[in-house]
Amino acid sequence: MAEEEVSNKHVILKNYVSGFPKESDMEVKTTALKLKLPDGGDYSGAILVKNLYFTCNCSAKDRVTIGFPDLFFFRRHPIGDLLWGLTRWEEYSVIADPETRFKIHNNLPPLFNCSALLTGMPGMTAYAGFFEICSPKKGERVFISAASGAVGQLVGQFAKAFGCYVVGSAGTKEKVDLLKNKFGFDEAFNYKEEQDLNAALKRYFPDGIDIYFENVGGKMLDAVLLNMRVHGRIAVCGLISQYNLEQHEGIHNLFCLITKRIKMEGFLVFDYYHLYPKFLDMVLPQIKEGKIAYVEDIAEGLENAPSALIGLFSGRNIGKQVVVVARE
Amino acid sequence: MAEEEVSNKHVILKNYVSGFPKESDMEVKTTALKLKLPDGGDYSGAILVKNLYFTCNCSAKDRVTIGFPDLFFFRRHPIGDLLWGLTRWEEYSVIADPETRFKIHNNLPPLFNCSALLTGMPGMTAYAGFFEICSPKKGERVFISAASGAVGQLVGQFAKAFGCYVVGSAGTKEKVDLLKNKFGFDEAFNYKEEQDLNAALKRYFPDGIDIYFENVGGKMLDAVLLNMRVHGRIAVCGLISQYNLEQHEGIHNLFCLITKRIKMEGFLVFDYYHLYPKFLDMVLPQIKEGKIAYVEDIAEGLENAPSALIGLFSGRNIGKQVVVVARE
Repeated sequence: MAEEEVSNKHVILKNYVSGFPKESDMEVKTTALKLKLPDGGDYSGAILVKNLYFTCNCSAKDRVTIGFPDLFFFRRHPIGDLLWGLTRWEEYSVIADPETRFKIHNNLPPLFNCSALLTGMPGMTAYAGFFEICSPKKGERVFISAASGAVGQLVGQFAKAFGCYVVGSAGTKEKVDLLKNKFGFDEAFNYKEEQDLNAALKRYFPDGIDIYFENVGGKMLDAVLLNMRVHGRIAVCGLISQYNLEQHEGIHNLFCLITKRIKMEGFLVFDYYHLYPKFLDMVLPQIKEGKIAYVEDIAEGLENAPSALIGLFSGRNIGKQVVVVARE
Repeated sequence: MAEEEVSNKHVILKNYVSGFPKESDMEVKTTALKLKLPDGGDYSGAILVKNLYFTCNCSAKDRVTIGFPDLFFFRRHPIGDLLWGLTRWEEYSVIADPETRFKIHNNLPPLFNCSALLTGMPGMTAYAGFFEICSPKKGERVFISAASGAVGQLVGQFAKAFGCYVVGSAGTKEKVDLLKNKFGFDEAFNYKEEQDLNAALKRYFPDGIDIYFENVGGKMLDAVLLNMRVHGRIAVCGLISQYNLEQHEGIHNLFCLITKRIKMEGFLVFDYYHLYPKFLDMVLPQIKEGKIAYVEDIAEGLENAPSALIGLFSGRNIGKQVVVVARE
């Protein structure tokens, strides 16, 4: 096979980032790449992939130290099968250790093209956090912060389908409308319009909250703690209001953990991939029957990835931020 | 039977207490009491008891609103059987609702007189918090704050007997010596002598902490979070450094819950009394074989109860604070 040479666009960090990153901290560069794996023992198991698109996450602190790892969907070159896993922000990647870097699924369901969100990391995160961490019971009262985000919108829909009362918070009127009208939440509110988060939660949960799916941290968590019910459960999925702050805001109401016997548990989706088949068993019929809605925010081209990332921190995106690197 | 009249000493709160209580907030009063139950339907199930001694707890905020409920050991009058339950700071109590106020045990083991600590609330609290909340495995690394307290000293001994590595913190050299020499902890340190709690924990747990038995809150909790191992467990039993503060100190390191997938769970011993027989099965042989040590700090007379309570907040007591109301 000829050693085809392509231009490989990639994004690099120019500066060390200590607070929120800015677009000017990043730079798009282009280098030439031979479409051939390097020789040598270290690359015996390596694969070369063409990146198609990736979902954009917001733990920017990690990015600064380890580059831009993100969940990519890509085709292996030259074999052409469709895979997903973690790689960098670039058009082509050499993945030296596909087995250890990420569990690569090459048996993705045919639906995959239309719901990266559902069958990928956000869907599995929502599933593990809600069902495994929170052990829900029908009729329980569920609150979700950052509820229009990739994970939140799915948790809400899973919880509704399971028979719970579901309320979400978000940061714009448009997102609140989505929660109520597209995702079928029982109630939703714009936290930015509430003077008193405690009072807002009491309005929607006069009898308290059984399950809190935590995506934001800070003042919202403190208000939620005051409104939890006895034996409530909190799945800590993210703390986006706190990322990139030099010091995180203090949480003052942890005494509620004792008085209300609350379980609060952090989790990472990577621990739950053994449940992936069970998750697909649940979610694929729901997708086929059109019972699950999802919203993705698409940015076209790697050169627009920095602005898509920055947008996450101000909540500019609606639904999961996806960056399309190449349309095949 | 003659209606014997006795003088009934009791302690009342004179003032609303917003910060730490002071001795001058409390007053010892004496009233006359007929040793007879009041007539009337509300008292059909009531019992009259002579209080012998009680263990002194430190959730002073609750005291302000509901009086001085504490775990008392008492004899039922005139029947004379030995019971335990919650009542007020007084020499004699009429307990109108013995079934609902507290689960009263009248089948206390014969050892009870020499180990109120072990067979009462502290023992059961240590048992439930360590075994039920923390699900320990042999060889795991356990850290206990306020470790010389009634519950802490027992958690440490249960954990050692179970096969764990156990380190405790306390606030005086005398208490640290007790932990190492009397209670058999592997290591112990005086947190007041540490400039940097994070560094202190790294010294005793170079590979991190699997289980944290939380009695204090505040800065210690923040330091512990940084030193937890992946899939660690935190049983939140108390937050004594925070009680009586107008606003609790902020906890800044909850992001560790996610990165390390930590479970943090508050509990109250009342939820676990169904395990009391199982607890006794474990602990009574250990007591008989002299394998469990305990230290109680005895104050004689109800008139010394206010100073005993105040002493808890400065850590003046060594071991469980007990107030002897009457020696039969």
